[in-house]
Amino acid sequence: MPRRYYLEDLALDEAWLRFETALTRAGGVDPPPAERVPLSEALGRITAEPVWAHLSSPHYHAAAMDGVAVRAADTAGATETTPRRLKIGEQAIWVDTGDPLPSGTDAVIMAEHVHTVVEEIIEIMAAAAPWQHVRPLGEDIVATELVLPENHRLRPVDLGALAAAGHTSVSVRRRPRVAIIPTGTELVTYEDVERLKPGDIIEFNSLMLAGQVSEWGGIAERRPPVPDRRELLRAAVETALAEHDIVVVNAGSSAGSEDYTAAVLGELGEVVVHGVAIRPGHPVVLAVARGKPVLGLPGYPVSTVLTAEIFLRPLVYRLQGRIALRRPTMTATISRKLLSPIGEDEFVRVTLGQVDDRVVATPLTRGAGVVMSLVRADGLVQIPRFSEGVHAGAEVTVELLRDLAEVANTIVVTGSHDLALDLLASHLRRFAPDIRLTSANVGSLGGLLALKRRDAHMAGSHLLDEETGEYNWPFVERLLPGEDILLVTLAYRDQGMIVLPGNPQELRSLDDLTRPDVRFVNRQKGSGTRVLLDYHLKQQGIQPERIAGYEREEYTHMAVAADVLSGTATVGLGILAAARALGLDFIPLFKERYDLAVPRRHWESALFEPLRQTLASPAYREAVVDLGGYDVTDMGSKLKVGGLP
Amino acid sequence: MPRRYYLEDLALDEAWLRFETALTRAGGVDPPPAERVPLSEALGRITAEPVWAHLSSPHYHAAAMDGVAVRAADTAGATETTPRRLKIGEQAIWVDTGDPLPSGTDAVIMAEHVHTVVEEIIEIMAAAAPWQHVRPLGEDIVATELVLPENHRLRPVDLGALAAAGHTSVSVRRRPRVAIIPTGTELVTYEDVERLKPGDIIEFNSLMLAGQVSEWGGIAERRPPVPDRRELLRAAVETALAEHDIVVVNAGSSAGSEDYTAAVLGELGEVVVHGVAIRPGHPVVLAVARGKPVLGLPGYPVSTVLTAEIFLRPLVYRLQGRIALRRPTMTATISRKLLSPIGEDEFVRVTLGQVDDRVVATPLTRGAGVVMSLVRADGLVQIPRFSEGVHAGAEVTVELLRDLAEVANTIVVTGSHDLALDLLASHLRRFAPDIRLTSANVGSLGGLLALKRRDAHMAGSHLLDEETGEYNWPFVERLLPGEDILLVTLAYRDQGMIVLPGNPQELRSLDDLTRPDVRFVNRQKGSGTRVLLDYHLKQQGIQPERIAGYEREEYTHMAVAADVLSGTATVGLGILAAARALGLDFIPLFKERYDLAVPRRHWESALFEPLRQTLASPAYREAVVDLGGYDVTDMGSKLKVGGLP
Repeated sequence: MPRRYYLEDLALDEAWLRFETALTRAGGVDPPPAERVPLSEALGRITAEPVWAHLSSPHYHAAAMDGVAVRAADTAGATETTPRRLKIGEQAIWVDTGDPLPSGTDAVIMAEHVHTVVEEIIEIMAAAAPWQHVRPLGEDIVATELVLPENHRLRPVDLGALAAAGHTSVSVRRRPRVAIIPTGTELVTYEDVERLKPGDIIEFNSLMLAGQVSEWGGIAERRPPVPDRRELLRAAVETALAEHDIVVVNAGSSAGSEDYTAAVLGELGEVVVHGVAIRPGHPVVLAVARGKPVLGLPGYPVSTVLTAEIFLRPLVYRLQGRIALRRPTMTATISRKLLSPIGEDEFVRVTLGQVDDRVVATPLTRGAGVVMSLVRADGLVQIPRFSEGVHAGAEVTVELLRDLAEVANTIVVTGSHDLALDLLASHLRRFAPDIRLTSANVGSLGGLLALKRRDAHMAGSHLLDEETGEYNWPFVERLLPGEDILLVTLAYRDQGMIVLPGNPQELRSLDDLTRPDVRFVNRQKGSGTRVLLDYHLKQQGIQPERIAGYEREEYTHMAVAADVLSGTATVGLGILAAARALGLDFIPLFKERYDLAVPRRHWESALFEPLRQTLASPAYREAVVDLGGYDVTDMGSKLKVGGLP
Repeated sequence: MPRRYYLEDLALDEAWLRFETALTRAGGVDPPPAERVPLSEALGRITAEPVWAHLSSPHYHAAAMDGVAVRAADTAGATETTPRRLKIGEQAIWVDTGDPLPSGTDAVIMAEHVHTVVEEIIEIMAAAAPWQHVRPLGEDIVATELVLPENHRLRPVDLGALAAAGHTSVSVRRRPRVAIIPTGTELVTYEDVERLKPGDIIEFNSLMLAGQVSEWGGIAERRPPVPDRRELLRAAVETALAEHDIVVVNAGSSAGSEDYTAAVLGELGEVVVHGVAIRPGHPVVLAVARGKPVLGLPGYPVSTVLTAEIFLRPLVYRLQGRIALRRPTMTATISRKLLSPIGEDEFVRVTLGQVDDRVVATPLTRGAGVVMSLVRADGLVQIPRFSEGVHAGAEVTVELLRDLAEVANTIVVTGSHDLALDLLASHLRRFAPDIRLTSANVGSLGGLLALKRRDAHMAGSHLLDEETGEYNWPFVERLLPGEDILLVTLAYRDQGMIVLPGNPQELRSLDDLTRPDVRFVNRQKGSGTRVLLDYHLKQQGIQPERIAGYEREEYTHMAVAADVLSGTATVGLGILAAARALGLDFIPLFKERYDLAVPRRHWESALFEPLRQTLASPAYREAVVDLGGYDVTDMGSKLKVGGLP
């Protein structure tokens, strides 16, 4: 039996302090020996020592204008009325910009101000000040002066200054080498996705880690995945330690029966920390082996990326003699309550957008397995371990993952998700690459409520009013009384039955749902699809109780489709896209209208200009039609709800 | 005779508009065809098309905990008092985290909550909610959904998401190719610095341009310099046009007799703009040839870099389907008056530092030939063409060239420049890589005045009081009455005579300056060196009028040394470093004290902690001694001036 390591709950700072102390005891994390590279390959590298000028620049007194070089003293007293004549070759010498100043001269008179009287004799109308139009030796750089300090990241202008100072190469920090060892018997590297089967996990964490290391200035080597066998993991870590400055094992860092990371690192060195009270990311191993830092990072992709930021980034920087600065932060209003357990530092991914005069931070899913939450994130909100969370509308500090300028150029869409919205986000960028559209899926009703709270610019909605049979506007009128809202139609879309390929039960209509061989799966109350179903059941006089499975609720189109695929249901109601995503069949039943609810002040703003263009563009319409299940006849037509008449 | 092109003075926006129009007429600047690259090589590249998910992630319903998979319905009603028994293999199946959910099950009960009664029979004490501890299929990514839009710069997490969605490669924009053609007969590439002679100019602009293009996502090719011969330049541009998306000619862009850039581009295509009213940067050529943008950029290095920012960067971005966002800006107080000509947009380089509660922007030299002004710059202030400039103390908008965090960590030193200060800046970073020291050279008196205006944290000063023979404190007392200032001694340094190698005139003492064969060069009134000279002349009873050249004033140690080297003077007074920089000899005459004047609130601040450490470190002291001409006996000793007793 492998020794079971106890998983601690160390506070983040305490964990880091222990790791620091252990690393110092083991000799410290110092930059590796420097290497000399030609200037043409030095961009982005870090200077390993101060660089002093070999040459002055200019390396001679240089004429800064085309004209004649003179001794200023010879020109004293010259005016328009008392011009002075100078002899070319003796008192004045023609020079071009950049020419060395001839010996004995100390000023240049611009060609435009020189009158040639006869050949070899010129006349000037003003005295020259000493050193006028001269770039004196060393104006830019004086030989022996400091050009760049050590630990400086080389930018294009730094390369120019080094060349101007007579250097052709520069001594820089060797890039730190980081080995990344994925471990887990179920891992299949993403390159081998073709042979994926249920239970396999696509290994792509090493790809993200390698990208991070590269962005931080290091060189990462992705090792092949190691199965859950202790001796194989040990061998892999030992090999990596011989060649790299840092070793990262991902994952096996928890305390399960097949988690060998802590055990192996304990054999090869000292496990300093096992378990840090952060979320996501708890099962972190911080160890020192052969005097080098070795990290065991948890396997859920979000945990991997965030714990690498926290524990790996400072080490990669330190090996280059640099300090990893925190990202810029800003203050934003959180759009909904965030509960967070006491005792854990939690990092919540948020999207950001400026709605009216405030920046709204909308939390993304907190699932550690949802890598798209990192893709979509504009920032991170840290909820400290002494806090139980923040209430909706609270001001929070957001660490920015994007430029502030991008946040200002963001259209925040919320409400019901639709594939045509994804397409809109994509087509929008053809008209304005700098305008982004971020969408959060909170359902149609949730979207209108977000609009009311001014947490979003626009809400996607497909809410059928059972009384009037009308779409969306009765809800807008009720929820946003007095506000000047436009309902802009995006499309009509088909709702229908999602069934196994070939429609083995031969379902044709809503009536068929009551057949005894049919097992239905429903959507949750309040969802647009559920409202639609209940409306039509009522219209057709079908009692819900007669449908087996009516009480079984799912929260997304995809969950319904997945139930059909896995056989736990034989039919569900949803959109074509969900069926198509899982290779299922689709029997269209109804058309529903999907609108965008937008306050007029947003719709008419400059921010929305490219969105208005996109909705009017044939390319976008065609792309929506190509999705299948959409009718774009009324795309862009507007209905005014509320506000002044 | 080459045709003389008239150099215009087009306003910046007008110039850009004309160029845009001409480019559109020529077919537009569109991204080149896409290329497909493996994910492992895609970091930082730009997507050429929207990317849709091939696979869902997870691609199956997955257990999110170790435990037993059950059908939630089978567990209904289980409590502590009425536990429910389930048969392993029929109603419950053991699963590990990540395992696929067995068919027919829809929830997982954690192993910790499962009691094994007898083999094959377990007992549970609570009902399982449907889908508890399950990662449903598509929780992260649903097959067919949009993973990334087009024109998106790939970050590490994006690569993870693409892999999770079943991609192994991605279609990205081909990197735009930019040819850089240096032109000028006097150019010597920096690699050939060994064969440099007066009149030669080191060609390093192409190195900076290539670095800029690379940072913007393009690939630059540096071509060998082309002499000032029209047919050679034409051939070089033609070849470059065949292989590149953009061609940059640097320089020959003015209207001089050997400036062929505009003429050649006019032959090969259309010169749209020649001369833009910006400073630095006036002689810019914007042309279109073979449907491609061709830029003629001015040759002074600062002009090259800034005009590339303005005109080249947007094109390189556009060829990747991106928009070049402006850098972040901040508001700062300008430390001195800036006059700027009406009619020109001027870009002034500034350093930034936070002194007390405001951020101070200190203008750097405006010379277009001073590349160190770009190296030292923390930001750019744009003075619009309708403005005559800004007065000292005005608020200005600064485009940031550095992170804001770096600005807060900056110690601003002003006053008299000294090589030991450069060393201090460099050694400081060993104690604190994130603390910077920026220094401006305004002379000793100017430094104390800056301290008074709170434009700097610290001033370097070597001011001898002629009445008392004391250094610095009489001036601090007079200029900063009532302020609590510390005078911290940096070093004593030698002032002496700078003479030709071997001291051919055999000068020994101040008296020798009155010899008839001696031509002296002086420093300007108010400089520490001038005060020192006048003090000692008075002490020794030497009449200044007896010294030939006493009235000839230079503003820097280096200018004095350069006069001696060039033979326009035979001796000047200065420091050892200036003599050494030009390979001259040095005859020490006096020791002067160089102090750092620091308000106590700064000296005792956390920002100064590493500076205090550096002054106390033997390594720094030794490095100063190694410079030669310094005595560090009293380094770090403090004298309190003013403030409360």
